[in-house]
Amino acid sequence: MNWITWMRGVLLAMAATTISVPALLGDEGMWLFNNPPLARLAERHGFKPDAAWLEHVQKSSVRFNSGGSGSFVSADGLVMTNHHVASDALQKLGTKDRNYYRDGFYAKTRAEESKCEAMELNVLESIEDVTARVNGAVKDGLSADEAFKARRAAINGIENEENKKTGLRCNVVTLYQGGAYHLYRFKRYTDVRLVFAPEQQIAFYGGDPDNFEYPRFDLDVAFFRVYEDGKPAKVKHHLSWSKNGCADKELVFVSGHPGRTNRLATMAELAYTRDIGFPFLMQRLYRLEVLLAAFSARSEENARQAKEMLFSIQNSRKARVGGLGGLLDPELMARKAAEEKRLRDAAAADPKLKEAVGAWDKVEKAHKVRAEIIRRYTLLEGGSAFLSDLFGVARTLVRAAEEKSKPQADRLREFIDSNKEPLELELFSEEPVYDGFEIVKLADSLTFLAGELGLSDPLVAKVLAGKSPQARAVELVGGSKLKSVAERKKLYEGGKPAIDASTDPMILLAKLVDPESRELRRRMETEVEEVKRQAYNQIAKVKFALDGTSTYPDATFTLRLSYGVVKGYEENGAKVPPFTTYDGLFKRSAEQKNKPPFDLPPLWEKKKPALDLATPYNFVCTADIIGGNSGSPVINKKGEVVGLIFDGNIQSLVLDFAFSEEQARAVSVCSQAIVEALNKVYGASDLAAELTAAK
Amino acid sequence: MNWITWMRGVLLAMAATTISVPALLGDEGMWLFNNPPLARLAERHGFKPDAAWLEHVQKSSVRFNSGGSGSFVSADGLVMTNHHVASDALQKLGTKDRNYYRDGFYAKTRAEESKCEAMELNVLESIEDVTARVNGAVKDGLSADEAFKARRAAINGIENEENKKTGLRCNVVTLYQGGAYHLYRFKRYTDVRLVFAPEQQIAFYGGDPDNFEYPRFDLDVAFFRVYEDGKPAKVKHHLSWSKNGCADKELVFVSGHPGRTNRLATMAELAYTRDIGFPFLMQRLYRLEVLLAAFSARSEENARQAKEMLFSIQNSRKARVGGLGGLLDPELMARKAAEEKRLRDAAAADPKLKEAVGAWDKVEKAHKVRAEIIRRYTLLEGGSAFLSDLFGVARTLVRAAEEKSKPQADRLREFIDSNKEPLELELFSEEPVYDGFEIVKLADSLTFLAGELGLSDPLVAKVLAGKSPQARAVELVGGSKLKSVAERKKLYEGGKPAIDASTDPMILLAKLVDPESRELRRRMETEVEEVKRQAYNQIAKVKFALDGTSTYPDATFTLRLSYGVVKGYEENGAKVPPFTTYDGLFKRSAEQKNKPPFDLPPLWEKKKPALDLATPYNFVCTADIIGGNSGSPVINKKGEVVGLIFDGNIQSLVLDFAFSEEQARAVSVCSQAIVEALNKVYGASDLAAELTAAK
Repeated sequence: MNWITWMRGVLLAMAATTISVPALLGDEGMWLFNNPPLARLAERHGFKPDAAWLEHVQKSSVRFNSGGSGSFVSADGLVMTNHHVASDALQKLGTKDRNYYRDGFYAKTRAEESKCEAMELNVLESIEDVTARVNGAVKDGLSADEAFKARRAAINGIENEENKKTGLRCNVVTLYQGGAYHLYRFKRYTDVRLVFAPEQQIAFYGGDPDNFEYPRFDLDVAFFRVYEDGKPAKVKHHLSWSKNGCADKELVFVSGHPGRTNRLATMAELAYTRDIGFPFLMQRLYRLEVLLAAFSARSEENARQAKEMLFSIQNSRKARVGGLGGLLDPELMARKAAEEKRLRDAAAADPKLKEAVGAWDKVEKAHKVRAEIIRRYTLLEGGSAFLSDLFGVARTLVRAAEEKSKPQADRLREFIDSNKEPLELELFSEEPVYDGFEIVKLADSLTFLAGELGLSDPLVAKVLAGKSPQARAVELVGGSKLKSVAERKKLYEGGKPAIDASTDPMILLAKLVDPESRELRRRMETEVEEVKRQAYNQIAKVKFALDGTSTYPDATFTLRLSYGVVKGYEENGAKVPPFTTYDGLFKRSAEQKNKPPFDLPPLWEKKKPALDLATPYNFVCTADIIGGNSGSPVINKKGEVVGLIFDGNIQSLVLDFAFSEEQARAVSVCSQAIVEALNKVYGASDLAAELTAAK
Repeated sequence: MNWITWMRGVLLAMAATTISVPALLGDEGMWLFNNPPLARLAERHGFKPDAAWLEHVQKSSVRFNSGGSGSFVSADGLVMTNHHVASDALQKLGTKDRNYYRDGFYAKTRAEESKCEAMELNVLESIEDVTARVNGAVKDGLSADEAFKARRAAINGIENEENKKTGLRCNVVTLYQGGAYHLYRFKRYTDVRLVFAPEQQIAFYGGDPDNFEYPRFDLDVAFFRVYEDGKPAKVKHHLSWSKNGCADKELVFVSGHPGRTNRLATMAELAYTRDIGFPFLMQRLYRLEVLLAAFSARSEENARQAKEMLFSIQNSRKARVGGLGGLLDPELMARKAAEEKRLRDAAAADPKLKEAVGAWDKVEKAHKVRAEIIRRYTLLEGGSAFLSDLFGVARTLVRAAEEKSKPQADRLREFIDSNKEPLELELFSEEPVYDGFEIVKLADSLTFLAGELGLSDPLVAKVLAGKSPQARAVELVGGSKLKSVAERKKLYEGGKPAIDASTDPMILLAKLVDPESRELRRRMETEVEEVKRQAYNQIAKVKFALDGTSTYPDATFTLRLSYGVVKGYEENGAKVPPFTTYDGLFKRSAEQKNKPPFDLPPLWEKKKPALDLATPYNFVCTADIIGGNSGSPVINKKGEVVGLIFDGNIQSLVLDFAFSEEQARAVSVCSQAIVEALNKVYGASDLAAELTAAK
């Protein structure tokens, strides 16, 4: 950032306080397909997609119900997505002898295409605004609780009725935090077969060090095919393939399913997140990352035990570093402040919105409570003080014994009957528990507890029971019988009498902590979460009153259209170009002496001479995306696939709170790279031909 | 720990409050050679070394003035120490083509023994108690300042006079924090030649993951030879070699130079360290370790740039984890509390000690101030908010301009004339500064600053100057000219006018921070350090009045005798045996697939068939040691070398504050392993024969 961009932020902020249109920044927005940003597109990019273009893109887009996006890329039901969206399916399809996740998969013939269990793809067929019907069911004068039930009943009624009528999956989607309700009708595909996946090492090339980074060199692609009646589905809409991909500065679209954004977050919430929430979370992530990395470095077996947890912590840490970077950007915060002022002024000025006037203060008050209790809450109820699988088991057993005797409505939510199955699945999992790893995690987290709350805290003293954290961890893990699933079942089925009688040290610890832990949870749920829910509902009403549907709603894991331009950026004073090439991949590998995670799969070493190294490989664009967009097609004005979204850079991690296009970028695989790899590396020329066949 | 040991701690604590002998624990103590623990040794181990034994061990012990210990192991002046004590010399002896540090060194003939520049070894010839002479020079009625000067003059006088008289290096050593003054006369050896060192990879086998850990597999040994008049020195005293090493439970001695202990630390200081000092330091270490590890993982060049800093942070982190573990051990703290009560009761009961009565409260008060200012002090004066070599240069330039105009006595200590040379050496160092690395460190530390003090802090706002930490770091590093040594010289020589006129952004930042930073330093020096110094002086007087020389003084990097037994311990519920073997080394390497840092040097792979794999390799004992003891010989009752100290385990890191023998262990190389490696791996049979030659 320099003073020019700083001033631009200030001017934007000023502009936003004097005119009452929402302060959209540049190519911001995750737009509804039934409300696309036509005027803004025309004005900024001189392009106006017609209804046919929109319908075609909409119906070519696919949602993976496991959490991800995709698109039809042939008339025969071929679906493109990311390797990391396909990874669950790849792991499940593997056998003792074949590791498809690691080694890749290619069905040379249709017969070899492998059916994936429990996979469902949805295609959005139509959208209908049902706001009036839903709101009509909520009579004036109902209490909040009654209103909630009446609305729920209306929504269930619409969904059931529409499903019977159309045979389609029908969902009423709550948009604008309750400002609008739209009925989404989806065609369901449940016979989904794996067609192609590359090696995980090329799909996630560079591993954690390159995760959320750019330049990038990942072939994060996989292909499935949907079948109907045992035959490849003939789909009416599919995207055709761009052989030449996209160019620098070109306008591109992303059609996919962003999962969740919190762009209404008030300044008080953002300040809390920036000053308390993220720093405290990062403190724990840093500590755990070092703990696990040091533990892993001691032996291969340790590394194997800690691998999954370590990667997840590294991923979270990177995400928070990126998010915090955004929250510390004064320009972004000035825009958020200006938008807040616009909404607060409007609430103050309009008697119809007077209920919302106090909403911002309510959010602020809720965050004061949150700040007050966050450390104890995280340590005790969040379990940061007791990082141990066995402690988790003990807590579940202790709580189950108590909760099962209560009426459904009064129970903690994880103990209501509808959650019984997943709860028991986890509780009785035969997944191994390693004593050494348990002790290392527990000793460290007890040490963290002592450091955070002090040894003189009465609960800390009771938890440590006159021992050092290390000695106490040894005693707890060594003395507990909860490693035995049979023992867990005995205590679970024995209910409260069994728990009361138990002398298992982990059970005793869970019982010791439970009263304060439950009280902290009660405060967090009632004094923070519920207060926030109500206040944000009022703030959303103000925004909807001002902007209506002239802007986009927060992400809801339903289909959205984003747009932007292919564009590099500046980082640490250096220019980051928008494209990488295959040549860059081999150079990166050579620079890193082909050491993991920068090693190349053997096939890539072998096929290098055949590849056109100048082929564009990955690229970045300014489109507004977030988690859930993984696997989304990147489309040009002609509606052709030019790329495949697979990540955001680290600067994009603030998009949860606010759009930014100075450095935040969506990261994609180039369409040309996919075809080049299929032809030259994988000998998958049939698949390449299917993709590139003229429409 | 179990309830038995817990009770043992309680009983010990009770005992200490009722009888007035110092609460020595087990084989505690870093004893003076002129005051060895004869009675305790006889009582506990039925062994009473005679004067000849003590003189022989004393005069066979060697101090490396670079900071380490060693011993004579042949009549021809052969000195044994650690590879890591020799590492500086090894690196300096290396050439462009020969990396002795990495690849090892062996002089097959005397002619090949290589002289080490600026290396001095000292051997303690005699000790004389000069307490009366020193104290006699301090007349009654002098002010503290006058008393200090009078004592200094007396000490200087004794040293000069003795040096003239004997030709030896003579130092008056302050023991028992001023309770006693002993004159140490050393023979100096300044012609020191390298004889043998193994590869760094076998000396520091297991690298950071195994550092401070046990079981261990390190051949951390090196040999030098002292010369006089160009010929190998004929030394009267040297240790003979034990071919069979030591056995489990055997009594052993360590003769070496422990650097520094703080065993007088009050409960208030220990609580501060446990609850505030260490947790805050560890929070920074965890953060930096992740930052540097993530930076390093991105490229080999990054890894090269960050390597030294990363290792030093990992080492510190491990040390603090160990130290904190000890401070969180209730048994250890109960002992400390009992000892404090003993001293306080004595001070209260004896009118002659009445000045000391308030000393503990003074230390507590000092730590309240320390707790109050530690965050801002560490961030601003400690520089944790500005981790950048260029910021360091800027601060030195800004302060030098101001300090140089002051009288010597009023200057910050690093700017007095006697420090001019090292200061300028560092300031004008041509060591490269890497922009990318500078930005990564500075952006992270500015983010840490914002998180710790909050964005609304006036100084934080000025430091960030309306930018995000990332953007500000880019601006500061990119805009500064201080990478140029010529520019630094210009500003240094230009003095205050040059600094006042400078618009270099780093200079401006250093100037911005300086007023508050200096004020924090002033408070730390006067309200914390000086208060502590005076209070501990009074506490030491109480202890000396009670115990006199019936116990050992805190470590002072002078020769001490420790003793203990060869003994394994329990860790995480598992037994850690006292010995490892060469077989274990090869097993560890195989388990780790010979990947760094668990790879074996090629010569070791090759010579494996020749080795007796059952040879004991490393062992642990309970002797009371600390940093400075590296390279100390481990000696049996016959005065033979059975091992070579090279590390402590992680549980030993609390020995700074208190002795402990439940888990704390000194880690050594077995004498047999050294001879076996010399003969079978290195073909150094002449050297092996010199070691093992009958005396």
